[in-house]
Amino acid sequence: MTAPILAGSFLTCPTPLAGDRVLLGHGSGGKLSAALLKERFLPHLANPALLRLGDAAVVPVEGAQIAISTDTFVVSPLEFPGGNIGTLAIHGTLNDLAMMGARPLYLSAGFVLEEGLPLDVLERVVEAMGRTSKATNVPLVTGDTKVVERGKADGLFINTTGVGLMDPGFQPAPDCARPGDVVLVSSPLGRHGMAIMAVREGLAFETTIESDTASLVPLVDTLRSALGNQLHVLRDPTRGGLASTLNEIAAASGVGIELDEPAIPVPSDVAAACEMLGLDPLYVANEGVLAAMVSESCLEAALTCLRAHPLGRSAVAIGRVVAQHPALVVLRTYLGGTRIVDLLPGDQLPRIC
Amino acid sequence: MTAPILAGSFLTCPTPLAGDRVLLGHGSGGKLSAALLKERFLPHLANPALLRLGDAAVVPVEGAQIAISTDTFVVSPLEFPGGNIGTLAIHGTLNDLAMMGARPLYLSAGFVLEEGLPLDVLERVVEAMGRTSKATNVPLVTGDTKVVERGKADGLFINTTGVGLMDPGFQPAPDCARPGDVVLVSSPLGRHGMAIMAVREGLAFETTIESDTASLVPLVDTLRSALGNQLHVLRDPTRGGLASTLNEIAAASGVGIELDEPAIPVPSDVAAACEMLGLDPLYVANEGVLAAMVSESCLEAALTCLRAHPLGRSAVAIGRVVAQHPALVVLRTYLGGTRIVDLLPGDQLPRIC
Repeated sequence: MTAPILAGSFLTCPTPLAGDRVLLGHGSGGKLSAALLKERFLPHLANPALLRLGDAAVVPVEGAQIAISTDTFVVSPLEFPGGNIGTLAIHGTLNDLAMMGARPLYLSAGFVLEEGLPLDVLERVVEAMGRTSKATNVPLVTGDTKVVERGKADGLFINTTGVGLMDPGFQPAPDCARPGDVVLVSSPLGRHGMAIMAVREGLAFETTIESDTASLVPLVDTLRSALGNQLHVLRDPTRGGLASTLNEIAAASGVGIELDEPAIPVPSDVAAACEMLGLDPLYVANEGVLAAMVSESCLEAALTCLRAHPLGRSAVAIGRVVAQHPALVVLRTYLGGTRIVDLLPGDQLPRIC
Repeated sequence: MTAPILAGSFLTCPTPLAGDRVLLGHGSGGKLSAALLKERFLPHLANPALLRLGDAAVVPVEGAQIAISTDTFVVSPLEFPGGNIGTLAIHGTLNDLAMMGARPLYLSAGFVLEEGLPLDVLERVVEAMGRTSKATNVPLVTGDTKVVERGKADGLFINTTGVGLMDPGFQPAPDCARPGDVVLVSSPLGRHGMAIMAVREGLAFETTIESDTASLVPLVDTLRSALGNQLHVLRDPTRGGLASTLNEIAAASGVGIELDEPAIPVPSDVAAACEMLGLDPLYVANEGVLAAMVSESCLEAALTCLRAHPLGRSAVAIGRVVAQHPALVVLRTYLGGTRIVDLLPGDQLPRIC
């Protein structure tokens, strides 16, 4: 199931020149995205809820705490092995709520349609959204549709926004990692991003790589029951992959993270596709993988409950949180060396969600 | 301030051919939009909250009732006299919440950026969103940014989704119009749509037509205090204009609506621009106008409190709700005749919000 990540051989992504226009790299989830947010958005929009910069905002309504999360999906192609933009739009927002510990309650959907989009493609996407919404038991309660002229969009973009209910006894957050915690992932890495790339580049392998798009809510429910507040951090490593997610957590918590390369699960077909395309699976998007940081004493309990669910049957520990080198993620390689796993300066893989 | 609407001279919009692809008219807010919703969306997504088809969904969270509203803004050009896509994106969603009687609490924003968008345009838009959010006292608590390749979007699209708190004692709804109610509007019609069109078509008039984009929350607050449940219906006639909004209300409430053409306020510059372009101001979008249906006994109270606010100083009664001709909107013209004011079959004015 796992294969070497070929550490170091991929660090060739050039730093885009700074300029006065939006670059593709601004959407990468890496350093350029962070700079755009910090320089162009936060100076005008800052408020306490926004500044927490989690997967969702946590805010009060009457006596309750709710979580609100928004995500726009611009994936190309619209349909791919394992799902389409509709399944992704439902799962993505549900997962963002779940990663904050919230129980998803309601979704909204905003569609931008390009003139000329085949109506049967639209209907397949909407059908998938309905099916996914029913399967996850979170209704889509309101929506909006806009149409733009041919050439002014790319078929179909979908924004989904979700509202969830927080549980006062369970509030994992990116700034709650503690030295001594163990880092887990619930399943092998890289399938969503490489499924998209394989279709886009016309690559054929012996097996078709399918997107892992899935709701992580059941895994979070089981972890909540088993671990409660011994579960410190939950994130789904989507855009920018596991590397970007762990960098954000290390920075937010002021801790270091050490990963064991041989322990990181990468399917052999994903590894082969990454090698052909010169991509690092640590930076490839996932849409059905959960990364968690838990107290070491809870490791077995966490793995046991994850592995009892089909989505988590390959759950595995891949590293640990340390007090050394705060805000740095370090990989102990197959060869016994170490390398820093940094945020990407620019874009490795645009428009995968 | 007012000018004849030249009834009947604009009913030349051709019915687009039905086909298997998305047409611009599907985004018009008229008959094609309604058909798309009914045929392609609702069969897959139907649930009780969605089927109410109001400006927002009203759903329970713990003991409270919240409203959720979503809207994607694709206006072209991004900047126009009186505002930009950012002010529109904040006002539009706040107004949708306010029209359900909800007090807006929080907003999310999802950005789709086209590669090559000048960063200073983006920053002006974000600055306007921050300013508008502060002025209306509704924080933008979470966001998302995606970037697509040059030619795959049109500069910038923004989705905003809002969450508001319902007041059990004040729940106006599109299906609550009753025969005997009076129809009011808070200010003159057509300024937003014609401001956009004037820029797009390079039209110059003696005065610049400015968009009326504004938060209607203060007007709703004053109406709530003065009228409570004697206020039956609230809507902001945006895409599709007053004509489309009143048609939706007439259909939802199973009532007829009669309008008095001489009473309908249309600024003379808007009327002139409409005449030049062959547009009917009844179908032109507004972004700072409120239409209300109130018990006749409350008419004076409603007009008094609206006129006490700068946004409502031209508030006026324009017609009445009748039991005859259910689901039809009828205009009593300057000449003493009547004509039916129907939903547009296709698109009069694309991408005004």
